[in-house]
Amino acid sequence: MSSPADLKKMSLSDLETLAGEIRELILTTVAKNGGHLAPSLGTVELTLALYSVFDFSRDRLVWDVGHQAYTHKILTGRRDTFHTLRTLGGITGFPKRGESPFDSFGVGHASTSISAALGLLIAAEIERIPRRVIAVIGDGALTGGEAFEALNHAGQLKKKLLVILNDNEMSIDKNVGALSEYLSELRLKPQYHRAKREFEEFVRNIPFPDISEKILLAAKNVRHGLKSAIVPGSLFEALGFTYLGPLDGHDIKNMRDIFSRVDVIDAPVLIHVHTTKGKGYAPAENSPEKFHGVGKFDKATGQILKKKSPPSYTEIFSQAVIDCAARDEKIVAITAAMPSGTGLKKFAEFFPRRFFDVGIAEEHAVTLAAGMAAGGLKPVVAIYSTFFQRGYDQILHDICLQNLPVVLCLDRSGLVGEDGATHHGAFDLAYLRTIPNMNILAPKDENDLRQMIFAAVKKNFPVAIRYPRGAGRGVVVKAEPSKIPWGKAEILEQHSSADATIFAVGTMVQTSLDAAKILRDKNLSVNVLNARFVKPLDTELIKKFARSTKLLVTCEEGTLAGGFGSAVAEFLADEKISTPLLRFGIADKFVEQGTRAELLDLCGLTARKISQRIHERINEIIFGFLTATT
Amino acid sequence: MSSPADLKKMSLSDLETLAGEIRELILTTVAKNGGHLAPSLGTVELTLALYSVFDFSRDRLVWDVGHQAYTHKILTGRRDTFHTLRTLGGITGFPKRGESPFDSFGVGHASTSISAALGLLIAAEIERIPRRVIAVIGDGALTGGEAFEALNHAGQLKKKLLVILNDNEMSIDKNVGALSEYLSELRLKPQYHRAKREFEEFVRNIPFPDISEKILLAAKNVRHGLKSAIVPGSLFEALGFTYLGPLDGHDIKNMRDIFSRVDVIDAPVLIHVHTTKGKGYAPAENSPEKFHGVGKFDKATGQILKKKSPPSYTEIFSQAVIDCAARDEKIVAITAAMPSGTGLKKFAEFFPRRFFDVGIAEEHAVTLAAGMAAGGLKPVVAIYSTFFQRGYDQILHDICLQNLPVVLCLDRSGLVGEDGATHHGAFDLAYLRTIPNMNILAPKDENDLRQMIFAAVKKNFPVAIRYPRGAGRGVVVKAEPSKIPWGKAEILEQHSSADATIFAVGTMVQTSLDAAKILRDKNLSVNVLNARFVKPLDTELIKKFARSTKLLVTCEEGTLAGGFGSAVAEFLADEKISTPLLRFGIADKFVEQGTRAELLDLCGLTARKISQRIHERINEIIFGFLTATT
Repeated sequence: MSSPADLKKMSLSDLETLAGEIRELILTTVAKNGGHLAPSLGTVELTLALYSVFDFSRDRLVWDVGHQAYTHKILTGRRDTFHTLRTLGGITGFPKRGESPFDSFGVGHASTSISAALGLLIAAEIERIPRRVIAVIGDGALTGGEAFEALNHAGQLKKKLLVILNDNEMSIDKNVGALSEYLSELRLKPQYHRAKREFEEFVRNIPFPDISEKILLAAKNVRHGLKSAIVPGSLFEALGFTYLGPLDGHDIKNMRDIFSRVDVIDAPVLIHVHTTKGKGYAPAENSPEKFHGVGKFDKATGQILKKKSPPSYTEIFSQAVIDCAARDEKIVAITAAMPSGTGLKKFAEFFPRRFFDVGIAEEHAVTLAAGMAAGGLKPVVAIYSTFFQRGYDQILHDICLQNLPVVLCLDRSGLVGEDGATHHGAFDLAYLRTIPNMNILAPKDENDLRQMIFAAVKKNFPVAIRYPRGAGRGVVVKAEPSKIPWGKAEILEQHSSADATIFAVGTMVQTSLDAAKILRDKNLSVNVLNARFVKPLDTELIKKFARSTKLLVTCEEGTLAGGFGSAVAEFLADEKISTPLLRFGIADKFVEQGTRAELLDLCGLTARKISQRIHERINEIIFGFLTATT
Repeated sequence: MSSPADLKKMSLSDLETLAGEIRELILTTVAKNGGHLAPSLGTVELTLALYSVFDFSRDRLVWDVGHQAYTHKILTGRRDTFHTLRTLGGITGFPKRGESPFDSFGVGHASTSISAALGLLIAAEIERIPRRVIAVIGDGALTGGEAFEALNHAGQLKKKLLVILNDNEMSIDKNVGALSEYLSELRLKPQYHRAKREFEEFVRNIPFPDISEKILLAAKNVRHGLKSAIVPGSLFEALGFTYLGPLDGHDIKNMRDIFSRVDVIDAPVLIHVHTTKGKGYAPAENSPEKFHGVGKFDKATGQILKKKSPPSYTEIFSQAVIDCAARDEKIVAITAAMPSGTGLKKFAEFFPRRFFDVGIAEEHAVTLAAGMAAGGLKPVVAIYSTFFQRGYDQILHDICLQNLPVVLCLDRSGLVGEDGATHHGAFDLAYLRTIPNMNILAPKDENDLRQMIFAAVKKNFPVAIRYPRGAGRGVVVKAEPSKIPWGKAEILEQHSSADATIFAVGTMVQTSLDAAKILRDKNLSVNVLNARFVKPLDTELIKKFARSTKLLVTCEEGTLAGGFGSAVAEFLADEKISTPLLRFGIADKFVEQGTRAELLDLCGLTARKISQRIHERINEIIFGFLTATT
């Protein structure tokens, strides 16, 4: 097979053989590189069925989230480079425009596919290009409000949009929500299977007339015929979609039959396909949430290869919020489809009635928390930094405008590594800082995190705590609360006549200490502070060190455009302080994938690079001159 | 009537008399102060029915958006102060915590009520407070994805949440979407009315047993009885809600009957109430979109009282995008339930096939535009600044990460006046600036706006243009495109040896020119530039004027935390330029309601206040000393 078009000529048994080969390639690659194994194993047959019917050099395919699209990548010219998956400069883990013309729309965050597909379809119509556009969306992503907005709009426009509902009963963990129960009913009730059989029989008997008018008539009849058979999908019918299914998502022949006949329906169609997450690899079928997004593992045993490392920030958060909740009955925890990822699964075991997994629904998660806080509770909302972006308006309008005591916990802040540009938590400090009443904290290590959580749940205003992906530093974590003076930075290294002072945020505290050490070897003395607070700023200490050192330095694993360093620059300007300021952070660009170490280096956020630039700047201040004009 | 509790004792005819009085008070007040007339006239009877059944000193009522809540305000101790509606220091136009204990959750943006109500209900359960919680949501707000997320979650939790669907077939303009068609069907089909009658009969015959077990049993029976009768609301049933209705929303007796009997249903219930927007005032019933949010008008005739003023920015935008679309077939326009408000209604008349009103669905609107752009079109998305906050993640992840040519037009940027804290477009410059690849423009006047639109639609990257509410300045608007040099500020006033240079954004350009004039009278010469671009910055001119003047000044009608002045502070720090910087903008607080003039004054954004602070600062630089340390 050299081009996707070849798939259309392949026999069923050839396709099934190919499915096996692809599964093997995915398995081998992900065992080595890590990646989204279970979702991609679940869609091998679905992808082959789609490619064997549609011509995606003309038609367009949009994958929701995209972590199920490895087969799609392998089929579209990326088989030979697939081994570079998720590595620096290699094949990305998600569809990405620019990587292939078959990646018609870049994805990463959930619930965008129907909107994007509808946009592509409208564009094709206006440009008068005959084209089918297909969105593939999981039952998890379907709970995201944007997917509903798009269904509602597409249903009204009555265009020939095809939505494939890839229902594996999971989002990342077990899927939740009334919709999920509804889909279970659709799958299980015998009459639905009857309906499905009837429909299949029905479409099989349609002759393909070559005159368009006849096709139109046939389509009408199909729709009428369907209407009676498909009462089950009434939710989708209510939104203007023709509902078909459920189909077995591992039966290529059956899917191919249905896909090739659906064209006669001149209306939006939703085909409900039932797949098994992790299909074909027993460890993943048995623990699909463990193998959803996975690090390196032993292919033979399914054993995850973990380096021995200190507990992760996520684990520290998990225990801290449990300990807080044990002391305070008002504490409740909310997550959006990430009980395992955020560490709240353990909380749910201890406090099942005080735990809420809302599904992929970040907007609702945030306003729900605001409602709970207005009702007297102390909600802790744990969501990955990149997904909190979905709740920006709700954080502003529902939490901060009402100054409600909600604690936002932003896991996977900063550079997340292999998931790449769509997933870096690079913007949180900057966008949260724009919001009045917000308090923003970042721990320098896991003990700091635990103490910040203890402190935050006692406050009567909004607090956001952002912390990175992965292992902590292995420091001693104090069980009992110790004081976090609110709005105060922590002085870690102070010299009587220092050349520069670094205010470092979160992960960059240790890097800054290391940079200071390098500089010490060059006879430069540098103060290092753990900023702890991005908002409010510790204005007192900033002033103090601006007075006593030649250079202020800020260092953060976040965007420079509007971030912590930006806040310090504002403060210095407003306070008429002219001490030079050197800002380290992520430049105003999207950062691609790679290991965290590779990306930190790319962004200039290593001790070596930081010390070098500080050294140059100090030299310039001492021996050179400023380009300033006053 | 002195407290809402009195309503429970009132006879039907007394309630109807009261409805008339309330309507009169609303009408008189809004005619004088402006406000949301039609929505509030539509809910007088609904509100009275709710208050005559529930005890909202114990129970909780959450209004979605809140522009229909005037009766609620009048009934809860704000009758005597209602004449201060929407004025500085007066009664706010939306429910607001702090204004009354009956305002259980602050609102303003659509689709949050079900989430918030669910949060309040969970809080009551955990705190063991017996309490009904009711959300009232319009059919327009129901199309917002967050409402769906909340229904999905509430349906799963199976708690006794009561949602009233206030269906007036409108959001602001005529409501759109498949859901809207679905609701029409529910309203019109006779069998649904039959179902409604059957239900009413059914609940009327339930005896109220005083033993809880019996109630539980009865509830179960009710549910079973209902299931058969209410197939019509299958969309809501699919989401786990018991659907009842539709009821006539102006029949107090009937609503009271249903509301008082619904308590036996131990599950989430959605009651579909059909109301008439503008009810009881003929001009508003006839033109509900005109009287949705309205300025002062003549009560007797319904004539809107308009001061003779130049065309608004909205009108200029409207014409410009039409003129662009006439020249370029790839240009399409999208709005979210605001065809009139954003001026795109006229576009829709010219180019019906290239116009898309997605309903209240900002997330979808943004990703749809990204999809269209990926398909080769040039989408222009017009949404109010405050509502674009809903699309932050989509702007970042779908448009900017893919660097797609979408033009975002942010109407009602800056201080919007009487709608207050929930509606000010104060954050757009700051949150958009955090996003790589974004270009941000603000016109100094209506000609600038027209020219910026001409320029923006020719670019192959994302562009955001923000402009204020209300009348333009009356300048000559050139029909033909004139050049907007990309990323370049415009020098408006330049002196050979100026004391200061102001970089002003949008509305603040004229204010800055006025400030310069005041300063000229005091023998200070000040350069004034129209910044035009907030991103990218005109680094060349900033450098040039930083070299040639003693003081740089930035002036913007937007938040100082992360806004334009912040970008300039960053740039000066990065470029090692120590010229003092004085930033004018909105402090890091939420701004309340008032006229635009009052609020600009409160924020220190008048020519007088600006000139004063510049004067002081220049004196300080010339005669005083900096607190700087180097």
